Amino acid sequence: MQFSSSLLENAVNEFAKLPGIGKKTALRLVLHLLKQHENDVQHFSEIIAKMRSEIKFCQRCFNVADGDICSICANSMRKQEIICVVENIRDVIAIESTQQFNGTYHVLGGIISPLDGVGPDQLNIESLVHRVQKEKTEEIIFALNPNIQGDTTIYYIQKKLQHFSLHVTTIARGISFGGELEYADEMTLARSLQNRLPVEKYVHH
Amino acid sequence: MQFSSSLLENAVNEFAKLPGIGKKTALRLVLHLLKQHENDVQHFSEIIAKMRSEIKFCQRCFNVADGDICSICANSMRKQEIICVVENIRDVIAIESTQQFNGTYHVLGGIISPLDGVGPDQLNIESLVHRVQKEKTEEIIFALNPNIQGDTTIYYIQKKLQHFSLHVTTIARGISFGGELEYADEMTLARSLQNRLPVEKYVHH
Repeated sequence: MQFSSSLLENAVNEFAKLPGIGKKTALRLVLHLLKQHENDVQHFSEIIAKMRSEIKFCQRCFNVADGDICSICANSMRKQEIICVVENIRDVIAIESTQQFNGTYHVLGGIISPLDGVGPDQLNIESLVHRVQKEKTEEIIFALNPNIQGDTTIYYIQKKLQHFSLHVTTIARGISFGGELEYADEMTLARSLQNRLPVEKYVHH
Repeated sequence: MQFSSSLLENAVNEFAKLPGIGKKTALRLVLHLLKQHENDVQHFSEIIAKMRSEIKFCQRCFNVADGDICSICANSMRKQEIICVVENIRDVIAIESTQQFNGTYHVLGGIISPLDGVGPDQLNIESLVHRVQKEKTEEIIFALNPNIQGDTTIYYIQKKLQHFSLHVTTIARGISFGGELEYADEMTLARSLQNRLPVEKYVHH
């Protein structure tokens, strides 16, 4: 792509570094910003820089936070004795968006994956054990992606927590709502048969 | 979408204002930036703000420019007596990327479209006429999108330029390279039949 302005070219190159944004999309975004009011673009730029420089990670659950403790941990209306263990911040947002969970989280910051060189020590697992030890945790809910790495991580953490008297669960796995049996993979279908539920439990709210 | 940090939420909302970027994509982009080094995000932010505040429009052709005159108009190696008339900056970049054109441009800043309330006065048409008058322009090439608005705009500008001795052309219209006849619309097919070329002219470089 040939530009007649290095200011434009630099801006396009910066946008094109973002994941899933190619040169053409980057150009479209930059030309859009070029049409906006200068103050609006200044605002856009400041919000992004401020987000990166001021955002913190909750000292208790490692979720993103505006201060030392995230708004979920700081909320006394939430059941602090229930911890939902997730891989990353995106999962926290996904679960929060369902508005069905009223406990707290613990963000591992990844998942055990020896092939990618990620071992338990790189994840926030020790801090989870300390947290369970210190707080009166009653239930741990694993909400990890249903794959080999997720299962390995659950197995590892469960071992670490076996000396505590805890209720340990994992989110249900099965056929997605709206999914079709014939397109489900064998593993999912087999597990959802094994873990079949009494029909009276199967109620949509 | 529920966020536990207003810094994160604000950044996602800013990205989601961009065209074609939904909330989920915005979140993915912001979480990507969150993982980058603080200096890199600062750089991203500065480049965008600088682009908007410092970019200029060429006083001669209305292309984007780093100074008063764009790098194409300032380039003495380019044929200043040939002007390619385009709708917007994106078209300049598209044509420049072919590396097949060695003249200059004139960016109209839009196209005559009464339904959208865009008349000739809102476009850089007077400046084109002055430019042809003042400079020794030899050829005008219209590179406008082949639709009713494009044709109307060509017709209008051509009328304005009829008293000058100029070679006025428009880019060829026809079936795209790699396109299929059966899927071409009737108008395109009809025009490409009318404007058929001797086979000896049809050479791929």
